[in-house]
Amino acid sequence: MEMRRNKQVVLNNYVSGWPKEADFRVQHSQYSNSINNIPADGTVAVLVKNLYVACDPYMRHRMSSRHVSHPGTILRNSFSPHSVLVGYGVARVIESTHPDFKEGDHVWGLTGWEEYTLIPNPHNLNKIALITDDVPLSYYLGVLGMPGVAAYVGFYNLCSPKAGETVYVSSASGGVGQLVGQFAKMMGCYVIGSAGTKLKVDLAKDKFGYNHAFNYKEEHDLGAALKRYFPEGIDIYFDNVGGKMLDEVLLLMKPHGRIAACGMISQYNLEEPEGIKNLFNLIPRSVEIKGYVETDFKHIYPQYLDFAIKSFKEGSLNYVEDVAQGLESAASAFVGIFHGRNVGKQIIRVASE
Amino acid sequence: MEMRRNKQVVLNNYVSGWPKEADFRVQHSQYSNSINNIPADGTVAVLVKNLYVACDPYMRHRMSSRHVSHPGTILRNSFSPHSVLVGYGVARVIESTHPDFKEGDHVWGLTGWEEYTLIPNPHNLNKIALITDDVPLSYYLGVLGMPGVAAYVGFYNLCSPKAGETVYVSSASGGVGQLVGQFAKMMGCYVIGSAGTKLKVDLAKDKFGYNHAFNYKEEHDLGAALKRYFPEGIDIYFDNVGGKMLDEVLLLMKPHGRIAACGMISQYNLEEPEGIKNLFNLIPRSVEIKGYVETDFKHIYPQYLDFAIKSFKEGSLNYVEDVAQGLESAASAFVGIFHGRNVGKQIIRVASE
Repeated sequence: MEMRRNKQVVLNNYVSGWPKEADFRVQHSQYSNSINNIPADGTVAVLVKNLYVACDPYMRHRMSSRHVSHPGTILRNSFSPHSVLVGYGVARVIESTHPDFKEGDHVWGLTGWEEYTLIPNPHNLNKIALITDDVPLSYYLGVLGMPGVAAYVGFYNLCSPKAGETVYVSSASGGVGQLVGQFAKMMGCYVIGSAGTKLKVDLAKDKFGYNHAFNYKEEHDLGAALKRYFPEGIDIYFDNVGGKMLDEVLLLMKPHGRIAACGMISQYNLEEPEGIKNLFNLIPRSVEIKGYVETDFKHIYPQYLDFAIKSFKEGSLNYVEDVAQGLESAASAFVGIFHGRNVGKQIIRVASE
Repeated sequence: MEMRRNKQVVLNNYVSGWPKEADFRVQHSQYSNSINNIPADGTVAVLVKNLYVACDPYMRHRMSSRHVSHPGTILRNSFSPHSVLVGYGVARVIESTHPDFKEGDHVWGLTGWEEYTLIPNPHNLNKIALITDDVPLSYYLGVLGMPGVAAYVGFYNLCSPKAGETVYVSSASGGVGQLVGQFAKMMGCYVIGSAGTKLKVDLAKDKFGYNHAFNYKEEHDLGAALKRYFPEGIDIYFDNVGGKMLDEVLLLMKPHGRIAACGMISQYNLEEPEGIKNLFNLIPRSVEIKGYVETDFKHIYPQYLDFAIKSFKEGSLNYVEDVAQGLESAASAFVGIFHGRNVGKQIIRVASE
């Protein structure tokens, strides 16, 4: 049996507070490059070579010891210390006993932060049908993958936008936010975004078509800033950050406003979440907040994929990603997203295609 | 012009913190018992003799100086000190220049806490079509009025209940909660309620058909209590209280759970609301919180009224109200609802029918 070196990114210990590079390490293990590795109980499995993995903020939850399990979601349990990180990736199939996948197929889905991963029961794996020069494979970790569906479903299905409505997007240039901004413009909405650096603010305006964007870190009075940008109030808030931002937005929602709760990145590293004080405003304003998990919308994916690929080819959709090179850079890239160091969707290139 | 004494309940000052009886006073003014009193600008108006007025918790908001106006709702502005309180009432028309109302009609809607009220532009007034011995007039302040519609719409329209689902209702025996419990039973749900006294807990179980009820004041660990009562989690939470109770419920919602935000009485007397810390749980559980104003559902009212009156006559719906006698008792009755002294919907009888 041929053995191959398998470089892996491993969690050193449960993370508390802000993740640090020292919470992770790179190790080399041996990997049997053979399907014989598949368990003897007849389980079908796919052996893949990973090409890209994504730094998704939700992964932070799985690094906490106090993590609450959410069965049926990607938050179903914590990573164990000394185990390889698991997250969304793009990979090439090396061997497969699963009828849907064969050697040479490209796939995206949950995989390991390592060079090779054996994936038993690959129900979270999606075959990439079309590979063209227009659409980089890595986009299946962004606009054509989980963040894309999260943006599309959260905006269209949950918020039912109408032309002329006012839309606010936090993390406006992030992997999800940059798409929501563009979808809102396509709908004929008036859309404003916020981000934490000048570069991201400029991107939001220049690349993603936001009517306006601002740096929330430069606003000493967040509520006043929002009031200035939305003098008539907000119809739709696409929330990627939670916390104080959400609390201020609650004071500015218009009657029958809708909030898509997509993420709350401002809270993930806090030992105790900030308290939200303005929830009462939901009542007299008839506002709804909807949480969601994009994997509940698998039936939407094919139509979304068609739409997104078509929009790319037409040039009506942009996507910006931030690609770190090699698993050695994984820890630094992951830590960086919580400090706003990434510009666009942060991913890691594991191997050349 | 004949002048009549008009006994009135007046706000002495803006209320801060818990309302006290001294925040209100009864005064006697003179009232011209004539339609000639109607403004000369041609405004149509209705002069009514008030029979009952309701102690609705939302009124507390209008007593604060820091009240935020919510245009288009009953929270559109604060009461002014030294002005007569305004709230839902049942009344008899004495004179009218409005084509929809004539002398002798019974009506319910927004009126004054006083013996006689001149109501210009009576768009908030509803004619009571049917008066029978089975259905007390005062029920138009409860099961047949605003709280009834709030319970019906909040439960059916916003929460889309299904048979077999688990339902939790706070203020289980209150003016709204007692109806939600019964609606949930009619739907075939498993419903548990909480209240703050033994009497209310017993009422919930014995009169309103809750599968179980408990006194939240006797639970030193609210989260543990809820977990005991809902080992499999909660599908629907009908929230009348907000605050800590809502925060604990967020940890126990089942995937795709629904929360109707009907009221947050635990927060109304606080200078600063309690912070809600567990909102992140909306996301992995795909839970939604919907605020609403029952006046948005006027189109539902006729069908609801038919249903409610029919249910009464069949004996399949109960309603309990707590009737204070006379405007002199108004301040004490209103203050009492924030201390849980009422049993069922608190109303005040202003005059005999």
